[in-house]
Amino acid sequence: MKAKRIYNFNPGPAALPLTVLEEVQENFLDFRGSGMSITEISHRSRQFDDVVNDAVARTKRLLGLSDNFEVLFIQGGASLQFCMIPMNFLAPGKSADYVDTGTWSTKAIKEAQLQDKSIAVVASSEDKNYSYIPKNISFNDDAAFVHLTSNNTIKGTQWAEFPDTKGVPIICDMSSDIMSRPLEVNRFGMIYAGAQKNIGPAGACLVIIRKDLLDWIPDTVPTMLKYSTFAAKNSMYNTPPCFAVYTVQLMLKWLEETIGGLQEMAAINQEKAQLLYGYMDGSDYYRATAEADSRSPMNVTFRLPSEDLEKQFVEQALASDLGGLKGHRSVGGCRASIYNAITLEAVQALVDFMKAFEKENG
Amino acid sequence: MKAKRIYNFNPGPAALPLTVLEEVQENFLDFRGSGMSITEISHRSRQFDDVVNDAVARTKRLLGLSDNFEVLFIQGGASLQFCMIPMNFLAPGKSADYVDTGTWSTKAIKEAQLQDKSIAVVASSEDKNYSYIPKNISFNDDAAFVHLTSNNTIKGTQWAEFPDTKGVPIICDMSSDIMSRPLEVNRFGMIYAGAQKNIGPAGACLVIIRKDLLDWIPDTVPTMLKYSTFAAKNSMYNTPPCFAVYTVQLMLKWLEETIGGLQEMAAINQEKAQLLYGYMDGSDYYRATAEADSRSPMNVTFRLPSEDLEKQFVEQALASDLGGLKGHRSVGGCRASIYNAITLEAVQALVDFMKAFEKENG
Repeated sequence: MKAKRIYNFNPGPAALPLTVLEEVQENFLDFRGSGMSITEISHRSRQFDDVVNDAVARTKRLLGLSDNFEVLFIQGGASLQFCMIPMNFLAPGKSADYVDTGTWSTKAIKEAQLQDKSIAVVASSEDKNYSYIPKNISFNDDAAFVHLTSNNTIKGTQWAEFPDTKGVPIICDMSSDIMSRPLEVNRFGMIYAGAQKNIGPAGACLVIIRKDLLDWIPDTVPTMLKYSTFAAKNSMYNTPPCFAVYTVQLMLKWLEETIGGLQEMAAINQEKAQLLYGYMDGSDYYRATAEADSRSPMNVTFRLPSEDLEKQFVEQALASDLGGLKGHRSVGGCRASIYNAITLEAVQALVDFMKAFEKENG
Repeated sequence: MKAKRIYNFNPGPAALPLTVLEEVQENFLDFRGSGMSITEISHRSRQFDDVVNDAVARTKRLLGLSDNFEVLFIQGGASLQFCMIPMNFLAPGKSADYVDTGTWSTKAIKEAQLQDKSIAVVASSEDKNYSYIPKNISFNDDAAFVHLTSNNTIKGTQWAEFPDTKGVPIICDMSSDIMSRPLEVNRFGMIYAGAQKNIGPAGACLVIIRKDLLDWIPDTVPTMLKYSTFAAKNSMYNTPPCFAVYTVQLMLKWLEETIGGLQEMAAINQEKAQLLYGYMDGSDYYRATAEADSRSPMNVTFRLPSEDLEKQFVEQALASDLGGLKGHRSVGGCRASIYNAITLEAVQALVDFMKAFEKENG
């Protein structure tokens, strides 16, 4: 029986390419001739070593990372990173700049403050409900790092260009746009991303870290909260989340071999975003909430004329096999998350539904 | 094509019941009629709520837990717990007793010491390479808790009975024997277990915690390292490792509905252990390394007459589709991990192979 599949606009966990899912499914009882499932095989086996090494190599190739960077997989999501970053990189005497662009930035700031670390919030877009990305920020020259959130899943904004930090390394939460576009990697000290939006299932966080930052880590940090522990053991100091890392590896393979790399992925993502924003810009019925120059090509947040209509919209969309369109509970409205695995066809189906809904209810 | 399957004696990640794997595989593209994979569905969905709630309810029924306990799923494995425990439960003025029964206990102790917490190592079996479980231990009356490792995966020992701590709550790492036998749960303040041995794949750690211990936690502990964060949000403060939790839920269902509960599971586990130890006790060729009264029914560690023969044994066993029999790299020798999912048939196949190997090489 053919499995039922819907168009999935969930913000995360989110859609994965059907071919990736089918590969996992097909090999689920016998992983690469081992006679064991990926869930049963030893993380010390040759087969699993190949998975991790391939995932690391593909990450480096896709982003053009030099050997100055380590590629790690850590559990706990980006939320655990919020506390690990100040713990590892803000020893007494060091200070960092944070920019507040909404929910996740705010949480990252809170975790640094909870540890009584020295940080400065150098810019915020809270004044307009985080509907834009701050400009003309004055960073502190002596900051150890600048913390940014590249894409704001809940508020629907993205840094189209990263700000000039005058050489201070950027530490960036890219959970919701990792591998969606090429990057100038040398401006970053660390990039981290929960896998469950653009590159895999929940349960693994990709961490890319410039090697010299590992020297900043105080000895007193607990072993499992030190980046150096993961770097020293190829992310296998203890048992890694094997299934999640394996699925990430397949996603990276898909990005390289099926899509053709991040230039190509970015072009597809732009085409999808333009289709959706373009349609809304020509409509009086739907209103994109982010300011035009700050719009996220990943999370398209929008409103309808009333909350009642928004509720109907989300329900009728799901009945038409378009899922996950409800806005985050903290902001309301609607949101279409159109990450890497979302096809142009899916976005077209959404636009077609939006047109029909407007016609019926407008 | 029928998948190749071997007898898998890996220490963790470890074998899962074929029926559980087949259920995951069959539903992998369409989870419970959602039209999405378990890797794609929102953790805020009704379908995933059902997964978590069912896993919690089954854990409570299987272990006979009252509502005094919270059941949580946390990422990072038991190794992350080693640092979370002192961070959460050893505020200034509090002290704890630890018993050192080998590698994992030793690591738990090290993480408390690294945080400069007040702990006493009240017993150790290091004097005989951890081949036994200490007896007649004097615990401190004023200890906040006693930390134990119920089963020692690497050294092949298990606490057959837990020691009398005179009412001091036990915090116990049960990673390698969770759900393998019934427990007197009211003696425990907390039980934790990486799922990847007895109850699922890598990527989720089951934490069972007595509610009053949540009041001990200092406010300054980072959000993602506080047990209270997970308790307040049914383990979904941030995105949980959905796939791992789902597979654990299926394992718990298998334990309840196919096996019939922990009494039944313990009887099967004893039968398997007796078959293997019984055969070795009657052989001059194989020698079980743990002292008789401390033997683990989960991890059976043994030696052959020489290291060369051990190497041949492991290789020839794998060629005969008996995998994962190499001892841990830190101790050498051989080890058969015979967790819940390992059938009596698998253990019989191993004993048959051992007999044939002895005949050929003895």
